Amino acid sequence: MRNNRKKLYEVSQQLSKVARGIEKADLVIKNGTLVNVFSGELLENMDVAVSKGRIAYVGNADHTIGEQTKVIDVNHKYIAPGLLDGHMHVESTMLSVTEFAKAALPKGTTGIFMDPHEIANVFGVEGVRLMHEEGQQLPLKVFTTFPSCVPATTEFEDAGAELGVEDIKAGLQWENVAGLGEVMNFPGVVFGDPLMIGEIEETIKANKTVTGHFPPDDPQMLQAYIASGVTSDHETVTREQGLEKVRLGMHLMIREGSAWHDVKEVIKVVTEDKVKTDNISLVTDDVYPQTLIEKGHLNHVVRRAIEEGVDPVTAIQMGTINVARYFKLDQDLGAIAPGKCADILIIEDLQKVVPVTVITDGEVVFDNGALVKQFPTFTYPEHVRNSINLKSELTAADFLLKSQKAQTTEVNVIKIIENSARTEKMTSSLQVVDGVILPDVEKDILQLACIERHHATGQMSLGFAHGFQLKKGAVASTVAHDSHNLLVMGTNPEDMAFAANELAKMGGGMIVVENQKILAKVSMRIAGLMSDQPLETVVKEVQQLEKAWKEIGCPIHAPFMTFSLIALPVIPEIRISNRGIVDVSEFKLIESER
Amino acid sequence: MRNNRKKLYEVSQQLSKVARGIEKADLVIKNGTLVNVFSGELLENMDVAVSKGRIAYVGNADHTIGEQTKVIDVNHKYIAPGLLDGHMHVESTMLSVTEFAKAALPKGTTGIFMDPHEIANVFGVEGVRLMHEEGQQLPLKVFTTFPSCVPATTEFEDAGAELGVEDIKAGLQWENVAGLGEVMNFPGVVFGDPLMIGEIEETIKANKTVTGHFPPDDPQMLQAYIASGVTSDHETVTREQGLEKVRLGMHLMIREGSAWHDVKEVIKVVTEDKVKTDNISLVTDDVYPQTLIEKGHLNHVVRRAIEEGVDPVTAIQMGTINVARYFKLDQDLGAIAPGKCADILIIEDLQKVVPVTVITDGEVVFDNGALVKQFPTFTYPEHVRNSINLKSELTAADFLLKSQKAQTTEVNVIKIIENSARTEKMTSSLQVVDGVILPDVEKDILQLACIERHHATGQMSLGFAHGFQLKKGAVASTVAHDSHNLLVMGTNPEDMAFAANELAKMGGGMIVVENQKILAKVSMRIAGLMSDQPLETVVKEVQQLEKAWKEIGCPIHAPFMTFSLIALPVIPEIRISNRGIVDVSEFKLIESER
Repeated sequence: MRNNRKKLYEVSQQLSKVARGIEKADLVIKNGTLVNVFSGELLENMDVAVSKGRIAYVGNADHTIGEQTKVIDVNHKYIAPGLLDGHMHVESTMLSVTEFAKAALPKGTTGIFMDPHEIANVFGVEGVRLMHEEGQQLPLKVFTTFPSCVPATTEFEDAGAELGVEDIKAGLQWENVAGLGEVMNFPGVVFGDPLMIGEIEETIKANKTVTGHFPPDDPQMLQAYIASGVTSDHETVTREQGLEKVRLGMHLMIREGSAWHDVKEVIKVVTEDKVKTDNISLVTDDVYPQTLIEKGHLNHVVRRAIEEGVDPVTAIQMGTINVARYFKLDQDLGAIAPGKCADILIIEDLQKVVPVTVITDGEVVFDNGALVKQFPTFTYPEHVRNSINLKSELTAADFLLKSQKAQTTEVNVIKIIENSARTEKMTSSLQVVDGVILPDVEKDILQLACIERHHATGQMSLGFAHGFQLKKGAVASTVAHDSHNLLVMGTNPEDMAFAANELAKMGGGMIVVENQKILAKVSMRIAGLMSDQPLETVVKEVQQLEKAWKEIGCPIHAPFMTFSLIALPVIPEIRISNRGIVDVSEFKLIESER
Repeated sequence: MRNNRKKLYEVSQQLSKVARGIEKADLVIKNGTLVNVFSGELLENMDVAVSKGRIAYVGNADHTIGEQTKVIDVNHKYIAPGLLDGHMHVESTMLSVTEFAKAALPKGTTGIFMDPHEIANVFGVEGVRLMHEEGQQLPLKVFTTFPSCVPATTEFEDAGAELGVEDIKAGLQWENVAGLGEVMNFPGVVFGDPLMIGEIEETIKANKTVTGHFPPDDPQMLQAYIASGVTSDHETVTREQGLEKVRLGMHLMIREGSAWHDVKEVIKVVTEDKVKTDNISLVTDDVYPQTLIEKGHLNHVVRRAIEEGVDPVTAIQMGTINVARYFKLDQDLGAIAPGKCADILIIEDLQKVVPVTVITDGEVVFDNGALVKQFPTFTYPEHVRNSINLKSELTAADFLLKSQKAQTTEVNVIKIIENSARTEKMTSSLQVVDGVILPDVEKDILQLACIERHHATGQMSLGFAHGFQLKKGAVASTVAHDSHNLLVMGTNPEDMAFAANELAKMGGGMIVVENQKILAKVSMRIAGLMSDQPLETVVKEVQQLEKAWKEIGCPIHAPFMTFSLIALPVIPEIRISNRGIVDVSEFKLIESER
């Protein structure tokens, strides 16, 4: 089922009649202070007339009110355009697109540009298509930027799928695919990887937007990257980098996610360098479920910008019209003006940006603290809901790392850093008993395993981690960036096997076990990445999971997030993949045993 | 022949190498003050490295300089992006696109969005195609907005051609057709004329830009027009209208043409209302040859904005990046940044905006007062160079208006207003001698004729004009908006016939005759609308023409311009067409004799 959103030219004659008072509006919002994102003004005593889901008239709209017209008198509250998040991954919320929409709409987000990169690593084009289609039936406007780097590497791991230039070319033709997802493989772009170059070429040919991802601090690389056709970045963490990117014409996306807090520093390009702001926007990138409840969604980022000294109208521009224009969708989105989709927020306090009422396509979706619209259901196919494909049930023996050495041996260890995606390479000396290398809970050297889970190849690797401080039990996750194989860590092989098998039976997610009992779990049936439950349930499950991690000894913050990143072989220094230990700095696979 | 301009993705790997210093630049502009239209700053001591016609690096570009690199040290002059004129008619310059380019490039205009509306009225799609193709081979970037209203009316006149929705749909697929030309038929848009609605629909479907034309002062009509999908306007003459259009999200094009001087008033939305300027641009619309020589082209408009108090960087933004973004071409145009076309001006005085050097696609086109590039020739086909198709040679008898009355009769007269496109309806009493109504030179009631000249139908009409004050001789023009039939005015039928026949033999243009001798003429072989001569020749011919108008009695300013507009049946109050006298206010054909 699709929503029945209308193209402008399907309803323009009706809008013309309403504007002239010949026909009457479906809805008139009366007596508001309009946040005019075009002129940069706040305009008092304004009405907005809506017909067929679009705006017909802005100003004094009395002439558009008929007997059937629903009139909402907002009594001098603010009328603002719905917020647009120009870069985010729905998978990070652990929610389906539908459940995410139910959580984000009340916060004022009426449109997103999602990069379904995670599901693409599991199910390729099919996964992208499913999330995109789910989005198309919602009152939230869901645009997709087609994932550009799937898998992240081909040398070191086996993802569930690959995307090639032809896949991207075809995907760019789907309605509401707005461009190419963050081109993370910046060395590939700069050094001429035919896949990256080909994807960018097809996106330019399709007149769509090539979004970027450029963390390093290297001006020559940066300019080479821009000259290759990438037009935005959301990885900027310093004011200086931000200013440089603005000057070079990049669309600067300033990010405030659950783990990324870039607004404080990067917004200085606006508040201190005082550059023109029309090519700057605010994005969330990755938001975890708890943040959605506690802080909000894009409205939290807008609020953060205001807290840092940005004028509220400018901050709202950076979450509305600037985004729409960057994706060449400003004929339909990003402002309150004739012809645009009636995606409108009623806000009491412009500093807080917490909407009282949210309207999309001219219909009230959220009002007075509650969703007031039915959301359609979307059912993922059975193989997507059972995506953990193991060759056979795992046994404790599978988790024993063999050694030829007697007594002790040296191993490479992945040392994690709290609240960081980076890791450090360290070594440790471990005991060898009966030809098996033993992890050492006292020294916080835990056993790691990464098991291929897409094609039931039975391939797996073993390694060691330091920093999580588990004292007992085991944990496992099928969220394991970017290939999302089955990642297991534990203090003993029995619990590791149990955790892995239980998680596979659940269809994926995250789990904590002790003595072959489940302490906590977050079920993520959709590709092993997302729950099919509502936000509140997921938050509760995640809280219990976090508690269980603590119970078995881990004191760090959001350990399951740090854990899910230790399989990501594109960030230094050392990682585990299903094929083995990856020395990212040396760009090669190495053995666990030195 | 086409220029060999390259797509970004054809050269991006080369640009990447140059940015990193692996390969060397073709051209480096050194030591300039960069006009950064993204950040709104002036940045000192900047270099720009160019390769394959595009910009590879901006900043200190020493690492891109090799033995073969041409280095231009600009010694702290300004480096600005080439100017883009978002709305203009090349036909108004009376020049071919090639000769216009030779005149405009030295003024700093490196790209235009032309609406070849006049030639479309004569030769339809073929005419548009010819001018567009001529543009594609030039060092000037020529984009076309496809003419939307050809003919201006179908009820009252016969143009040379008509354009339908299918023509527009096909035309929008041509490379470098950027959108739909000014939709002048705003009543048609608002009241649902299927032709207008269909054209707008096809333009939106093609992801291109629908440019507008909305002179009236009617907010409901304006919002109906905007809600129909039109996104810009260049007809704004007051600050209040300008502010209203900005607030409603229209791209406001502030115009300074030869006959239109709108900057002084409308720029107040920037200097006094202080709205955000990113959706405002500066355009010329119609520039006559003399203006090109005396004042310049778009640089004159930018200069006017600066004179009115706009910051020079903002004024340049309104003639560069804002235009590029409006037409969704900012990946290639409108700024100096990696990947963009190397269309660059070197300017000494930022207040004056007179370039010392003009570079397009990385090649110097104009330097130190002279064009330094060969321009290709473009030959229009023979039937376009001989487009005045009369059924037979005209005789004095053809210009005699018969009457049944004896002695005197009352006639409708077109009263012109100096320096205005408007006319007023008046009546006059004229003598009837031998059944013929005689014009009255003493009372300044001159004979008018409008002769169908496209399809040799022999159809013509006769009427009377007041205000030109000719005392002798006759004048004729094949520039006669918008249908461009053969327009003749005179004091006696012999000179009128002579003027018409001579002009037809010339292939069209403008002529002044006396006693069956040519006093002056401007030859316009291309569709009877444009000269094939260079600017200097055309200016001389026009000066002689103006002098000749004076010699036969006309004291008003630029009379041939006012004359060419009296056939335009979409502006009040009264007009002449090949079918008769048009009462525009009453929207009907009337008789000359009351």
